[in-house]
Amino acid sequence: MRAVDIIIKKRDRLPLSSEEIKFFVDGFTRGDIPDYQVSAWAMAVLLNGMTEQETTDLTLAMAHSGEVLDLTGAVELAVDKHSTGGVGDKVTLVVEPLVAACGLPVGKMSGRGLGFSGGTLDKIESIPGFRTDLSTEEFLAQLKRTGLVLTGQSADLAPADGKLYKLRDVTGTVPSIPLIASSVMSKKIAGGAQAIVLDVKVGLGAFMETVEEARRLAELMVAIGRLSGRRVIALLSDMNQPLGEAVGNALEVREAIEALHGGGPADLREHCLVVASHLLVIGRKARGLDEARRLAEAALADGRAFEKFRTLVATQGGDVSYVDRPEKLPRAAVVEPVVSTRAGWLKQVHARIIGETSVELGAGRARKEDAIDHSVGIIVHRKVGERVQPGDLLFSIHARSRPEALAAKEKLLGALAWSESPVEGLPLFYGVVE
Amino acid sequence: MRAVDIIIKKRDRLPLSSEEIKFFVDGFTRGDIPDYQVSAWAMAVLLNGMTEQETTDLTLAMAHSGEVLDLTGAVELAVDKHSTGGVGDKVTLVVEPLVAACGLPVGKMSGRGLGFSGGTLDKIESIPGFRTDLSTEEFLAQLKRTGLVLTGQSADLAPADGKLYKLRDVTGTVPSIPLIASSVMSKKIAGGAQAIVLDVKVGLGAFMETVEEARRLAELMVAIGRLSGRRVIALLSDMNQPLGEAVGNALEVREAIEALHGGGPADLREHCLVVASHLLVIGRKARGLDEARRLAEAALADGRAFEKFRTLVATQGGDVSYVDRPEKLPRAAVVEPVVSTRAGWLKQVHARIIGETSVELGAGRARKEDAIDHSVGIIVHRKVGERVQPGDLLFSIHARSRPEALAAKEKLLGALAWSESPVEGLPLFYGVVE
Repeated sequence: MRAVDIIIKKRDRLPLSSEEIKFFVDGFTRGDIPDYQVSAWAMAVLLNGMTEQETTDLTLAMAHSGEVLDLTGAVELAVDKHSTGGVGDKVTLVVEPLVAACGLPVGKMSGRGLGFSGGTLDKIESIPGFRTDLSTEEFLAQLKRTGLVLTGQSADLAPADGKLYKLRDVTGTVPSIPLIASSVMSKKIAGGAQAIVLDVKVGLGAFMETVEEARRLAELMVAIGRLSGRRVIALLSDMNQPLGEAVGNALEVREAIEALHGGGPADLREHCLVVASHLLVIGRKARGLDEARRLAEAALADGRAFEKFRTLVATQGGDVSYVDRPEKLPRAAVVEPVVSTRAGWLKQVHARIIGETSVELGAGRARKEDAIDHSVGIIVHRKVGERVQPGDLLFSIHARSRPEALAAKEKLLGALAWSESPVEGLPLFYGVVE
Repeated sequence: MRAVDIIIKKRDRLPLSSEEIKFFVDGFTRGDIPDYQVSAWAMAVLLNGMTEQETTDLTLAMAHSGEVLDLTGAVELAVDKHSTGGVGDKVTLVVEPLVAACGLPVGKMSGRGLGFSGGTLDKIESIPGFRTDLSTEEFLAQLKRTGLVLTGQSADLAPADGKLYKLRDVTGTVPSIPLIASSVMSKKIAGGAQAIVLDVKVGLGAFMETVEEARRLAELMVAIGRLSGRRVIALLSDMNQPLGEAVGNALEVREAIEALHGGGPADLREHCLVVASHLLVIGRKARGLDEARRLAEAALADGRAFEKFRTLVATQGGDVSYVDRPEKLPRAAVVEPVVSTRAGWLKQVHARIIGETSVELGAGRARKEDAIDHSVGIIVHRKVGERVQPGDLLFSIHARSRPEALAAKEKLLGALAWSESPVEGLPLFYGVVE
């Protein structure tokens, strides 16, 4: 078998066999197949596509390019939750303790933010002392003992995916639905997941800007699950505007803690209850979504969800006084309110622009090696469809300095679009694929 | 400007500007743009195409990636002839002395054979002592003094093309008409050509298997000429069956010498007269094809063409006794006749199979570093459309040993297809593009 023949087949729109895909991925992982062959192949995949079977074969080959975790010694059924990334998406911080409180153990390996999209690890590290570098042994032991873990991905999981992603980033081959789907699913499978709830974001602040694209991605990931013997359910959720109100690391942790106390913004609460319900159903802790939702609502109401989060922080070395008194969390030097000078209905609160502004304030990173500031960010006080009067608060900018806050203010006003007449609010979800 | 953005534009079917193409080619030549970006771009070009303007910009950027020869001090008008490669194509050996004898100076840089397709340098080196490694200074001085040079390409011409070709070869990005056209034309332009006759081969033994493909390639190369201020004319010529009878280095030199004496196979003679006539017209030595043909026929008939060839060999250090007595040229140990056991009309004499068989006998190379045997090869005694009786000679195999000859015999019989009823012969040419 020769790598060039595999490239030529894909170039000529012929399907690749499992053996060919495995040969290609293994050769790339070992360094026998050079980057220049893999990037030509990736471009051919982007332009010519792959079948569900090919994408599944790619997913499994990448998942098995390194260590594959076996969680069956630690949990009965290994469930996982994955978001394709968005602005203000602190759902993991709420949902994982919530389902754990309902008796469904969950060990999650999260990522860092890159570009306008935040990352759960960056957020949780707003709490001093919280360790996100657990070893595999620590991960498994804690999952078995406490039923809840939140850490970074160990270096050994799906190394082929990491290597391929780096190459795609510099060769214009990122926006390929089969390559995105196999990247997500390979890491989930290498992490040992047997059942997965995917939160596929759609809209201006998401990678997939249209419902059709997001649905194609979701359907492909569900198909990969089916063909690889994993149960996968995908929610298509709105990311035209930020989820909840807080954007920025410590601000989001504070909002997540409010939600774990049963409060917080209504859209965040509802989103978390829906995701948690699906997790409880695929995790076999409830027979249906109604029962699951009742369980989840109860765990929020009686404080068990919050208690689980508190235990998680304590177990991983975090200072729980920050959880008990969130006002202790890192605070920005300047808080600049942005007040409306006009009246009207909001027809757009552009999630990507808000995410980018938050990155510029210091909350995120443009390049992987950049440092982040946990204290800064934006509170978005308004949603699409709301009526605004002059003098109403639109944003609160948490910045390191007034000049930075004023620069952010300009950008944030540009994220809004107005209407003279009433506008419908945005739905939270556009559908479920399973 | 960033290389990845240029890849993305081409991926998204947007045309690239001259500046973008120059930036990309120059960066690649210097090594600033890595192979993995160039191969992804090449695949996007292969699948999405390029406009005539983009292809011209690519051609000129590659031509100027190294030294560009200036022949204006040596000749009035620098003409060149290029064949896209085929089996039994010894046309350069005949045509260049022929037009030089008609007063049109021509300095040619030829290539070596690779795969089933032969190369002029390998053929001419059948003559002991013949030097094909002239320096640029030697090339220019000889062209000025004698009006005829035949040598290898100096290392400095169009280095970007050489680098890109190597990469395309291992990334499945060879069969792209814009990339092929710019590769051919960049070398011609770097070699100083102002007017070019292209012999674009079509058929089973050519890179372009259909007339439509060959025409597209020819039209694109003519357009590059127009857009870059060079006069280009392209002939579409048959390569379903070998040209002439001889396939193999010394065998082809012998046949070329016969043609230079006014003899040789009729198809070879006609092909050479047509190519020579076009060269004489674009080289302004004749006002039309009829006048040009009369000049060329005269130079063959009165011995001037042969004399020019003899002088060429002598000038470049070759032993002219081999030209005067071609029976001295390297001869194979075994000559095995292949006789027909059946009657019928030939409807196929598969050029590629015959070329491949010749390579297996030792006349060509599968990889660049392989050595070749000048003595071996095949004489193809029959053409498509001929009627054959049992006992008629089909091939003469010139081999190093009987077992090799017998293996070749099997393959050669497989190159033939037969008909019970009369079959039309193949045309020599399918058209002219200018």
